[in-house]
Amino acid sequence: MHQFWWVNHKKTAADELAGGYIWSPKKEASGARSQFYDNLRRMIPGDRIVSYANGTIKAIGLVTDFSMAMPKPTEFGRRGVDWDNDGWLVPIKWQTNQKTIRPRDFLEQLSPLLPRKYSPLQAKNGHGNQKAYLSEISSEIFDLVSKKIGEPDLLMNEEIESTSDLLEKATKILEEEILLDSSLSLTARKQLILARRGQGIFRKNVFLLEKECRCTGAKYQSLLIAGHIKPWIQCKTSLERLDGNNGLMLTPTIDRLFDKGLISFESSGKILVSKTIPADQLLKLGAKTDNPRPFSERQSSYLTHHRENVFRG
Amino acid sequence: MHQFWWVNHKKTAADELAGGYIWSPKKEASGARSQFYDNLRRMIPGDRIVSYANGTIKAIGLVTDFSMAMPKPTEFGRRGVDWDNDGWLVPIKWQTNQKTIRPRDFLEQLSPLLPRKYSPLQAKNGHGNQKAYLSEISSEIFDLVSKKIGEPDLLMNEEIESTSDLLEKATKILEEEILLDSSLSLTARKQLILARRGQGIFRKNVFLLEKECRCTGAKYQSLLIAGHIKPWIQCKTSLERLDGNNGLMLTPTIDRLFDKGLISFESSGKILVSKTIPADQLLKLGAKTDNPRPFSERQSSYLTHHRENVFRG
Repeated sequence: MHQFWWVNHKKTAADELAGGYIWSPKKEASGARSQFYDNLRRMIPGDRIVSYANGTIKAIGLVTDFSMAMPKPTEFGRRGVDWDNDGWLVPIKWQTNQKTIRPRDFLEQLSPLLPRKYSPLQAKNGHGNQKAYLSEISSEIFDLVSKKIGEPDLLMNEEIESTSDLLEKATKILEEEILLDSSLSLTARKQLILARRGQGIFRKNVFLLEKECRCTGAKYQSLLIAGHIKPWIQCKTSLERLDGNNGLMLTPTIDRLFDKGLISFESSGKILVSKTIPADQLLKLGAKTDNPRPFSERQSSYLTHHRENVFRG
Repeated sequence: MHQFWWVNHKKTAADELAGGYIWSPKKEASGARSQFYDNLRRMIPGDRIVSYANGTIKAIGLVTDFSMAMPKPTEFGRRGVDWDNDGWLVPIKWQTNQKTIRPRDFLEQLSPLLPRKYSPLQAKNGHGNQKAYLSEISSEIFDLVSKKIGEPDLLMNEEIESTSDLLEKATKILEEEILLDSSLSLTARKQLILARRGQGIFRKNVFLLEKECRCTGAKYQSLLIAGHIKPWIQCKTSLERLDGNNGLMLTPTIDRLFDKGLISFESSGKILVSKTIPADQLLKLGAKTDNPRPFSERQSSYLTHHRENVFRG
C-alpha cells in the first residue's frame, strides 16, 4: 500500500531536513515537465523516503500529507536561485540516523535493486543522477537502507497526522498580513479571514449559487462546508477569496477529498477521481455524481485552476 | 424548517447578550428535569430567538451552532449562584434592536398567539412566566416582534457558520492551561494538545482498536478522523484524553454528525439517529450501519457519556 521514494537534495538538504518537507519547482527552467518533479504529486501520506545528499544518507522520513502548491521556500535564498518560484511542497517527518551511511560502501548490494528508469543513483559508481530530484524506489531498497542504518524503522510506528503544520504556519502568516493590511477596510479584513473557514460573506455568496453537495445531494445546511475551489491560500486577490463562484457546498468528507485533490470536476459537472484512491474506498466515501450539473463559466475558470494545481490525477 | 424561540433571561441578560449565547443548567436545583432547559437541546443552527428581560425586548438572535455541554459561565458570578455548574450552552448571534419594545404594549395582538403550554408570558397580563427560561414560539410571534421593532429581520440574510467562536475560545483556554501544567511532562502536554485534533498517540491508540469507519466501512486512513467519544473538552483527566477506547475512526462527515450529537451508538453497535435530522438527508450523508459491531466494555462507558451529554435524541 505504501510507496517508497529517494530524494537527492543537493544544496538544499539542510533547509529541507530542518523545515520538515521536500520542495521542487513544478517545471524545469526550460518550462519542460520532469518526471522527478511530477513524482511529488504522486506521494501519499504514509509513504517512506530516503534522504540523500553529498554521497551520504543522513535521514529517512515519513510523508505526512499530500503535496500542495507552494512558492519556493524563502530560506533557500541564493541556493534556489535557478528554480522557478512556483512549486510543489510535500511535508515530511524526518528521522535523523544515529549513523551516517554512504551508498557507495554497499553498492554491490544496492546496484541490482536500482530501477532501470529514473534511478536516483548510477548503478556503476553510486553517484547521484543529475536531475533526479525525487525517484520511486522499491521496498527492498528502503529495507536495505534501514538495515544499514542499524536500527528498526521507528517511523513505522507513527500514524499519519491529518493536518499539516506547514500549511497551518503559512496560513497564519497570510492571515496576519491581511489583518495588518491598511489598504483594506476592517470589515473586509474580517470577511477575508472568515472566508478561509467557509464562513461569513463568502459562505453566503457560495450558497446563492450552490444549494447542495455536488456528490451526495445532501442539503442539510449546518453540516455542509463552503470550501474554496481555488484554495484560499493560493488566491491572489480579495475578490477571489470572497467570490461565490470560487466555492462549493460539500459534505465534510467530499470537501476533504476535493481539498486534498483526490477528486475534481470537469466543467460539465463530471467528477474526476485520482488514481491514488482505490475504487471501493471511493464508493464508501460517497464520492459519485449521479446527476452532473454543468458549472458556469466563472466557476469553470476556478475549476481549471483546481485541476491543474490541486487535483493529482 | 427553522424553529422559533423566546428566552426570558432575567438577571443574566447582559452577560448572555454580550457573550453571544444562552446558558441553562441541565436540571433544576431539585434535580428534576425541566422542559425549559431541555429546549436548549432542541435548537438547531438557523433557528431564531427573541430576547426578553425586565418587561422589554432589546434584541433578537440567530442560533449559530448546536448546544454543547458547558459549565456555568464564570461571568455570571453571584447572579448564577442558585444554579448547578453543569449546563447547556447555545451560541447565538444577537442583533440589538434600534428600538426597545415592551410586549405589554401590544398584548392584545400577542396574547392570542401565545402557546397554551410552556408559554413564555402570561396571556392575561404579559408578565414573564416563572421558570420559563426557553420557550418555543410560533413564527407568527417572531414576525410580530420583528414588525414592532420596525426593521426587517436582518438576520435572515446571514448564513449559518460552521464552527463556534465560543467553543474555540473555551478550547484555547484549556489548551493554555495544559501547556502551563508543570505536573505533566512536556511530552504529555504535547500529546494532549495533539489529541484534540485526533493526532499523535491518541490517533495511534484509537487505530489499534478501530480500523475503519463504523458507518461507511471506509478504510482510507489519510481521510479518516480519530475523534473523541467523550469530547476532548469534557474529559476530566489526561487518561481520558489519550485513551484509545475513547475514540472512533470516522469519515469527516460521520465524525461531524457524531460530534454534533446528530448520531450516537448503542453498545451493540446499533446507530442512533437524532430526530432533528431528516431521514432522506441522513442517507445522503452516508450514516448507516449495515454490520453493527458490538463495542467493548470500556468503549461502552464512553458511549454512555456521549448518549447522555452529546446526542440530542
